[in-house]
Amino acid sequence: MDRKKVVIAGGGFGGLSVAHALKGLPIDITLVDRQNHHCFQPLLYQVASAVVSPADIAWPIRNILRNQSNIRVVMADVLGVDVDAKLVKTDSVALSYDYLVLATGATHSYFGHDDWAKYAPGLKTISDATQIRARMLLAFEQAELATDEARRRALLTFVIVGGGPTGVEMAGAIAEVALQTLPHDFRDIDPRSARILLIEAGPRVLPSFPEALSAYAGETLRKLGVTVMTSSPVTECDGTGVTVNGERIEANTIIWGAGVVASPAAEWVGAAHDQAGRVKAEPDLSVPGHPDIFVIGDTAAVHDSKGRQVPGIAPAAKQMGKYVGKLIAGELAGKPRPAPFVYHHQGDLATIGTHSAVVNLDHLTLKGIIGWLFWSVAHIYFLIGIRNRFVVAISWIYGVFTSGRGARIITLPDNARSATRNNVR
Amino acid sequence: MDRKKVVIAGGGFGGLSVAHALKGLPIDITLVDRQNHHCFQPLLYQVASAVVSPADIAWPIRNILRNQSNIRVVMADVLGVDVDAKLVKTDSVALSYDYLVLATGATHSYFGHDDWAKYAPGLKTISDATQIRARMLLAFEQAELATDEARRRALLTFVIVGGGPTGVEMAGAIAEVALQTLPHDFRDIDPRSARILLIEAGPRVLPSFPEALSAYAGETLRKLGVTVMTSSPVTECDGTGVTVNGERIEANTIIWGAGVVASPAAEWVGAAHDQAGRVKAEPDLSVPGHPDIFVIGDTAAVHDSKGRQVPGIAPAAKQMGKYVGKLIAGELAGKPRPAPFVYHHQGDLATIGTHSAVVNLDHLTLKGIIGWLFWSVAHIYFLIGIRNRFVVAISWIYGVFTSGRGARIITLPDNARSATRNNVR
Repeated sequence: MDRKKVVIAGGGFGGLSVAHALKGLPIDITLVDRQNHHCFQPLLYQVASAVVSPADIAWPIRNILRNQSNIRVVMADVLGVDVDAKLVKTDSVALSYDYLVLATGATHSYFGHDDWAKYAPGLKTISDATQIRARMLLAFEQAELATDEARRRALLTFVIVGGGPTGVEMAGAIAEVALQTLPHDFRDIDPRSARILLIEAGPRVLPSFPEALSAYAGETLRKLGVTVMTSSPVTECDGTGVTVNGERIEANTIIWGAGVVASPAAEWVGAAHDQAGRVKAEPDLSVPGHPDIFVIGDTAAVHDSKGRQVPGIAPAAKQMGKYVGKLIAGELAGKPRPAPFVYHHQGDLATIGTHSAVVNLDHLTLKGIIGWLFWSVAHIYFLIGIRNRFVVAISWIYGVFTSGRGARIITLPDNARSATRNNVR
Repeated sequence: MDRKKVVIAGGGFGGLSVAHALKGLPIDITLVDRQNHHCFQPLLYQVASAVVSPADIAWPIRNILRNQSNIRVVMADVLGVDVDAKLVKTDSVALSYDYLVLATGATHSYFGHDDWAKYAPGLKTISDATQIRARMLLAFEQAELATDEARRRALLTFVIVGGGPTGVEMAGAIAEVALQTLPHDFRDIDPRSARILLIEAGPRVLPSFPEALSAYAGETLRKLGVTVMTSSPVTECDGTGVTVNGERIEANTIIWGAGVVASPAAEWVGAAHDQAGRVKAEPDLSVPGHPDIFVIGDTAAVHDSKGRQVPGIAPAAKQMGKYVGKLIAGELAGKPRPAPFVYHHQGDLATIGTHSAVVNLDHLTLKGIIGWLFWSVAHIYFLIGIRNRFVVAISWIYGVFTSGRGARIITLPDNARSATRNNVR
C-alpha cells in the first residue's frame, strides 16, 4: 500500500483536467469539492436568464469520473491545509496527500465593499444563477402589483455592474427577457418599459477584446435596449439602488460582474498572492517552497509569454490542469519536471443576446449571427453528455423561433422566497 | 365598468380549467397563486428522483394564460376571504369579486403529528421535490464518508410512508437510482446495499386499484429491491428514523406520502368540512349559503353517483373547473344553474420504476411495459408546451437506454445546504 496519494481540491475545469491526465496510473486520487456537481460556468448566465435548467449545465462529479477507478470523489468543504503533515482539512474528513492540486476557483470581489454582496449577487454557482433568475422574475411580478409609480420604476430597473463577458451576456439576456419574452404576459405593466443598465468603470465594454468588437458589442446592446454606461465606476450600492457618477439610480435588481477574488488557497498554504488573491506560482505551477503543491486555474497568478496575466477562463484552467497532471505522472515515473507551463490563448467569445456574439480568435474575428453560430457550436461541443447537448440545443432552437424561455420558474424554497419578497418590497 | 369580477384562487389543474372555460367573456378575471408557476404534479416524483428538471414540468401561469385577455395573474398568498365585502385578502393586494372559485389544493397531513413534517417531507411542490432530491443524493454522499457502520446503514435506508401512487412511484424511483444509476459512482459504499422500505398502514399498496393490480405492484416493487410492508402503521417518526409495528427502523431519509389535508378554504369562508379539511360542497360545487363561492379539486368534498369521495387527482380537478366555469358563464348569460356536477372517473395510473406501470381504466387493465407505454404517452400528451414534451421525452428515452439520471444535482442554496448537512449528520 505505498501507492502515492494525490488530492485534487475542486471539481471545476482545472480539477477535472488533472484527474483525466492521471487516468490509469497506479495511484490513489481524491477529488474533493463542496458541491456534488461540476458546473459549466460559461452557460451559467443562461440559467440566470431562464433559457436552460440547472441540470442541463451541471453533472455529478462522481458520475463524470465513474470509469476512472483510481479516483474517489468526496463532497466536503476544504477548510485548510497542513503542509507539514501533508493533510487537507475539510468539514468532514481529513485527506493526506503526496501531491496536492488546489483548483478551488474564485468568487466575486466587491473591492472592499463586502456588504454589497447581499444587494448585488454575482454569478459563479448554480445557486447564484437560480437566485438571480428568481429575483429578476419576482421584480416583474411585483411591478405588476405596485401602485406607486417610483416603486414600479425601481422594480423595472435592472443594473448590471461590470462590462466584461458576464456583464454583457447578462445585460443582453435580461433585455431579451423584458423586450421579447414577457410583453404579452402582463396586464398592468409593459415589460418593454424596463430599464437595463450595464455599468462599466473602464472606458469600454469587453476590455479584453479588440476595440472594434467592443464598439460592436456596445452598439448591439444599445439596439437591444440596454443603456451602456462606460467610465462609470459604482461608488455606492445598497438594497434600493446604486450611485454612479454622483447620480443615484433606484434599482430593485443589481447583478455583480465586476471582479473576482481567488478562493483562500494562498492563505491555506501560506503563499504570496497578487491583489486578486491568486497564488504567485512557480513556472511549473507549484507553490514556492512546496514542490508537492500546485495551483491552477483561478487560484494561480501566472503570466503568458508576453507577460500578461493568464485570464480566468475555462481553457486556461484546462491547460494548467493537463500540464500539472502530466508533470505528476512523469515525476511518479521518475522523469524530471518538464519545461515551464506555457499558456496558449485560443480566443475570446461573448454572446450579446440570443442572435449575436463576438468572437476573437488568433487570425479571425467574427460578429453578429455568424459569431453566434460559432459560439453555439463550440459550447454545445464542450457540454458533457448527449442528453445535455440535446436539451440545451432544443432550448436554444426553441428560443430562436419563439422568443420563449423554457425555464421561467421561481424555485426558491418557501422560506427563502418570503425573505426575498420582503427584502425587495 | 360594470364588468363582473371573477377571482380564481389557485393555478393548479382546477383553477386553470375554470380560466379556460371563461375565455373570451366580457368579464374581469383575476387568477391568484402563491407560486409563479403551474406545476404538473403527476410528474413531481420524477423531479424528486432526478429524472427531469423542475422547469420541464412547470410553466409560468401568466405565460399559459397570456392570450386570454380577460385575465390578470397575481402572484400572492391568499390569507382569507371577507364574504360580506366580497373581498379576497392576500399578503399584498385585496381582490374584490362577484364570483370566487377556491382551487387552492391540498398539502400533506401528518394525522395530528405536525412535528413529523420536518423529518418526513411530502411531495406537493417543486420546492418539496428539489429538497427530497437533495436529501436523497446527500445521503449517498455522506454514506460514502461515514466511518461508523450503523450510521452508514441509516444513511442508506430510505423509508417511504404511504402506499398510494405517490409512495409506490417514489419507492420504485429510489430503488432504480440506488440499484441502477449509482452503483459505479461510489468507491467505499455499494449503493445496491441501500434499503428502500415502503410502509403502508392498510392491507395493500394502491388501495384504489383492483386487488390483482395491487398484488402486481407489490411484486414488481419487491423485484426492484423494495421491502413492502403492509398493515404497518407508523407510530413514531423523528430525525433518525421511524417506529413501525413496535420495531425501530433507523433511516436518514423519510418521505411522506400517507395523507393530505386541504388548504384552509373552509376556514376562510366559514364552511363545514370533512376530516381532510375539504369543504362540503353543494351539488353545484358552491359553498352552502354562498352561491357566489365555489370549491373545486382538492378543496371540495364531493361524491360520485355511487356515493364515493371523488379522488384528489388531476382529471377530477379539471372536470370540476370546467363545470364551474361553464356555470358562471351560463349564469352571466342569464341561464339557470345546470344539473349537479357528475364526476366521470377515467381511470387510475401508477408507475413502478421506469419500465412498468399499472393502469386501471373502465373496461381495461394494463400492467408491465405495456402499462408503462400507455402511461408515458398519456403524460407526454398532457404536458404543456412543445419544448417540455421534447425534453421530458428525451430524458425518458435516455433513462431507458442508459439507466442514467440527467438531473442528479444538489441545488439547495448554500445556507440551506449546510443546514441539511448538519441535520442529517
